[in-house]
Amino acid sequence: MRMQRSFGAIVVCVLWLTGCATMETPNRDTLCQQSTIDALLAANYQGNLSFGELGKKGDFGIGTFNDLDGEMICLDGHFYQIKSDGNVYPVAMDMKTPFATVSFFETDIKKEIQSIPDYSSLEYLIDGLLPTVNIFYAIKIAGTFSFINVRSVPRQEKPYQPLVQVVKQQPVYSYKNVKGTLVGFRCPAFVNGINVPGYHFHFINASRTKGGHVLDCQIEQGTVEIDSTHDFSLRLLQSESFYKTGLGKDRSGELKKVEK
Amino acid sequence: MRMQRSFGAIVVCVLWLTGCATMETPNRDTLCQQSTIDALLAANYQGNLSFGELGKKGDFGIGTFNDLDGEMICLDGHFYQIKSDGNVYPVAMDMKTPFATVSFFETDIKKEIQSIPDYSSLEYLIDGLLPTVNIFYAIKIAGTFSFINVRSVPRQEKPYQPLVQVVKQQPVYSYKNVKGTLVGFRCPAFVNGINVPGYHFHFINASRTKGGHVLDCQIEQGTVEIDSTHDFSLRLLQSESFYKTGLGKDRSGELKKVEK
Repeated sequence: MRMQRSFGAIVVCVLWLTGCATMETPNRDTLCQQSTIDALLAANYQGNLSFGELGKKGDFGIGTFNDLDGEMICLDGHFYQIKSDGNVYPVAMDMKTPFATVSFFETDIKKEIQSIPDYSSLEYLIDGLLPTVNIFYAIKIAGTFSFINVRSVPRQEKPYQPLVQVVKQQPVYSYKNVKGTLVGFRCPAFVNGINVPGYHFHFINASRTKGGHVLDCQIEQGTVEIDSTHDFSLRLLQSESFYKTGLGKDRSGELKKVEK
Repeated sequence: MRMQRSFGAIVVCVLWLTGCATMETPNRDTLCQQSTIDALLAANYQGNLSFGELGKKGDFGIGTFNDLDGEMICLDGHFYQIKSDGNVYPVAMDMKTPFATVSFFETDIKKEIQSIPDYSSLEYLIDGLLPTVNIFYAIKIAGTFSFINVRSVPRQEKPYQPLVQVVKQQPVYSYKNVKGTLVGFRCPAFVNGINVPGYHFHFINASRTKGGHVLDCQIEQGTVEIDSTHDFSLRLLQSESFYKTGLGKDRSGELKKVEK
């Protein structure tokens, strides 16, 4: 009788275990995004998603922090905050983000590269590696950079200014002959208003002390790794500010000014 | 000893059960979408997602079938196929869809309505009930319709024609004094290219025998139920046809012709 009960309990466990296994890994190949780029452009710098929660959705990605307090980079499951002084700070799991994109990085395409003269050439090179421009890609490029120009946005206080105003005072940092990693994504054209169509990279050096949003770079040698992604998951802000934001207009002009 | 084993097994079960409870309901308030509206406009009428799989993502929604074989409506967990003859057919769980949007419907806002003269007035009325136009809404309207005009797209054969060509020959059906339900969504402006910005409804009558994509309607009396949704999940097609589709151009003009 007791044996039967044990056996029954074990059967139930196995059933639950099987159930959980499928639930636990719905699709690791999903790009998970907090809020939209147009909401960020319109000064929605407060989100309610903690980095503890964000870490469950990916081990690789980019974004920013509440109050627009610097550039975020996530690499190998570690989150880093690059403040406007260009230095890297640790991220507490209860800190929150108003805008971020993450995924679990699994290499689908890999290519050694060298002597890439500028950012635009890098974009063309990666375009050549892709089977289509209609899906999402997470992209990691570790290597030696002959030079790299990065920026980091300065922390804002209320009342917030639109991002296009903020970046007018952005500090830019240049590094020469530095080892490090580009972390970013290529999004299809149809995400206009939601994320950045095309490429968007952040950088962190090998010693994890410097970094920022990439403006330009020259690559001596490196390895491009690409993760093809067909699933996209978006969570919108639940704030009065977001609810009241006018999202009907085309902000792609603003976005270009902010990105470059 | 045996008691201890039983107890251990039960503890493990409870742990798994707790784990599953969180895994099982990651967020039922998520709009789940297969493919993009622009991909459908560009004649991507073959998808690999079965209705069995789609049913795990929602009990409410709209879409179409492989080969564009009619209008799909999902209500209270039942899928219905409305072929171009205007009649309703059962949906086998191994049938597949190239485009669909579903969610688990949970009423957040409810309003009795009467004497709505046309579709446009209905849109304005619902707009008045919403806290913001920046998030997604699933919308259900059960009632008595003084009249309703619906269409259903005819099954296509390869080589497929673009949707804007197909709808030129669409059969339109008008029903008077009919009881039934509108099933649909309101999407924010920033989904342009991905889904239909604004409202998109399908209709099925109370006896589940007639229906289609709604072109116009007059409502005698009914109940509007609205489910506010902040999470959006998109799965792109993994087909050669989709990979080769030009998605860079603005197809909103085509979409207007197709919707009305």
